[in-house]
Amino acid sequence: MSNHKILLDHGSGGLATRQLIEEVFLKHLDNPVLSRMEDSAVLELPPGRLAFTTDSFVIAPLFFPGGNIGSLSVHGTVNDLSMQGARPMFLSLGLILEEGLDMDVLNQVARSIAMAADQSNVLIVAADTKVVGRGQADKIFINTSGIGVLPQGLNLGIHRACPGDKVIVSGFLGDHGASILLARSELPLDASIESDSASLWSLVSEVLENVRPDSIRLFRDPTRGGLATVLNEIADASKVRIEIVEELIPIRPQVKEFCDLLGLDPLYLANEGKFVMLAEESEAEHVLQILRANPLGKDASIIGQVTDIASFRGEGVILKTSIGGSRIVSMLSGEPLPRIC
Amino acid sequence: MSNHKILLDHGSGGLATRQLIEEVFLKHLDNPVLSRMEDSAVLELPPGRLAFTTDSFVIAPLFFPGGNIGSLSVHGTVNDLSMQGARPMFLSLGLILEEGLDMDVLNQVARSIAMAADQSNVLIVAADTKVVGRGQADKIFINTSGIGVLPQGLNLGIHRACPGDKVIVSGFLGDHGASILLARSELPLDASIESDSASLWSLVSEVLENVRPDSIRLFRDPTRGGLATVLNEIADASKVRIEIVEELIPIRPQVKEFCDLLGLDPLYLANEGKFVMLAEESEAEHVLQILRANPLGKDASIIGQVTDIASFRGEGVILKTSIGGSRIVSMLSGEPLPRIC
Repeated sequence: MSNHKILLDHGSGGLATRQLIEEVFLKHLDNPVLSRMEDSAVLELPPGRLAFTTDSFVIAPLFFPGGNIGSLSVHGTVNDLSMQGARPMFLSLGLILEEGLDMDVLNQVARSIAMAADQSNVLIVAADTKVVGRGQADKIFINTSGIGVLPQGLNLGIHRACPGDKVIVSGFLGDHGASILLARSELPLDASIESDSASLWSLVSEVLENVRPDSIRLFRDPTRGGLATVLNEIADASKVRIEIVEELIPIRPQVKEFCDLLGLDPLYLANEGKFVMLAEESEAEHVLQILRANPLGKDASIIGQVTDIASFRGEGVILKTSIGGSRIVSMLSGEPLPRIC
Repeated sequence: MSNHKILLDHGSGGLATRQLIEEVFLKHLDNPVLSRMEDSAVLELPPGRLAFTTDSFVIAPLFFPGGNIGSLSVHGTVNDLSMQGARPMFLSLGLILEEGLDMDVLNQVARSIAMAADQSNVLIVAADTKVVGRGQADKIFINTSGIGVLPQGLNLGIHRACPGDKVIVSGFLGDHGASILLARSELPLDASIESDSASLWSLVSEVLENVRPDSIRLFRDPTRGGLATVLNEIADASKVRIEIVEELIPIRPQVKEFCDLLGLDPLYLANEGKFVMLAEESEAEHVLQILRANPLGKDASIIGQVTDIASFRGEGVILKTSIGGSRIVSMLSGEPLPRIC
């Protein structure tokens, strides 16, 4: 392209928009559906139920250790579908670009979107680009929406937690949140923390294929708000009490250290390549074996269980601390960590 | 809500996000799918092909004569599905909010989204909200993605134009673009121009139900880039020449006057409640009758036809002017009209 910055004209819907589509998006993302350039993509899907989800990404900085806004926007929506047990199939891509954005940056992001979609086995079938003036957005915002196919009979849900269920996390928690905050900070730390941004479908599908389906209550990815917020949402929706054990929660030493330094609680940090799941007690060890056999789940751990409500006063999340006490873990409130995804 | 501005904390994923969802979004948009608050919506759809589309809305000003960013974001995606002949069924909603946004403004927009979705007979089944700092976005950006169901055997497409086909527009052109530019301008004009923002599905479905389906080649809504750009896209994709007659193109006198004053060409102005369609010559008058019987199409007009390529030199769009000449109408280029939708 003759110029190397995004101009307002690239969003006008005319010739410059078309050039941008051809020279950036079709170059990286070309496939038979997208290249038809109709107002809507026409999709053939197997009969049955679908999952449908949307997510916008406004992360700053755009590039961070372990990924960038492009790969993150694919993983995020693929994971939202996966958490419902749906096989991710099709994504849409809505970009809002700031005038003056470097064309090289856009190309890098588009290339990452393409790679992440390939690796996640999904097709980008619909796209839209808008451009706003300088100072009216911050470089790039991305929306991805996605469609997945649900297996017959599967019925996962945030309302399904039962007393006795084991709480399992698929690996180290807090990596994404810590890596973004570290990338933004001006602290002279030599810690190296990478985002865990990854597609979780392979891990979810291995569990679903190898375990009695009704023994799995739900999957949930603890993104914004972290593990603490997700467990509170589950406790609230299922009207149960959840008890987790601090010593059993996998957190990398460098994430712990970083959190101690900044006074952050890793239970509230965002994750972009981990899930928490609830499984019937009798299947929990089997699930753990399956998870640990996959590189994405090798640090999976059973971190607690759903307890009978009757033995406590109401629903909620309780942490048994390593020094032998216990405390209530509430939802994230105050102290926002903006633009973490 | 105790405070009346959007705070960064509303996007943190924790308690404040949840309050925002409950007190704004579920208040206006509640339905059994959305209120489950899962990571993905689970949808039951009839078997067959689906249409899937995405669109982001960054219009300024947020409120304009004839609509606002909320109603526009529903109509835009409903129309993209309709243009493929798909019955619009489900929408997702992705909001990016600027810190400091008035809660009243957000409520008004959410109410308009709800009303437009109701009127268009679609359900909002998935939603996401992000908040960015002051000066990192301009008030509200909205992405809507949508799923529609395609009737069996229908095969509309931008590649399907054939010599002899009639070009039909569903009503006055340029209203949306002119109304936004007028709303932004500081010209002391007493012209009143309303956006045409509207859902086109009822009009499309009446045509599809009453005309032999294979006589309809395509529908297309001339949004950004206007009629001129859409006709060029059709000519290019179908490798045909399209001839339109200036006198037959319905443009309101006040839009014409406004364009004359600003040196704009109404053929490039955006529309948000109009379509252009191509139909076999033998069915064109029948189509026109159907369109004119619906209030949304009462000013529909046959404005030209696809001519045999052989009689001209290559594809393209030709305008026969009222003074008897003819000129090539190219795609919109240069002179961007930013944030028109």
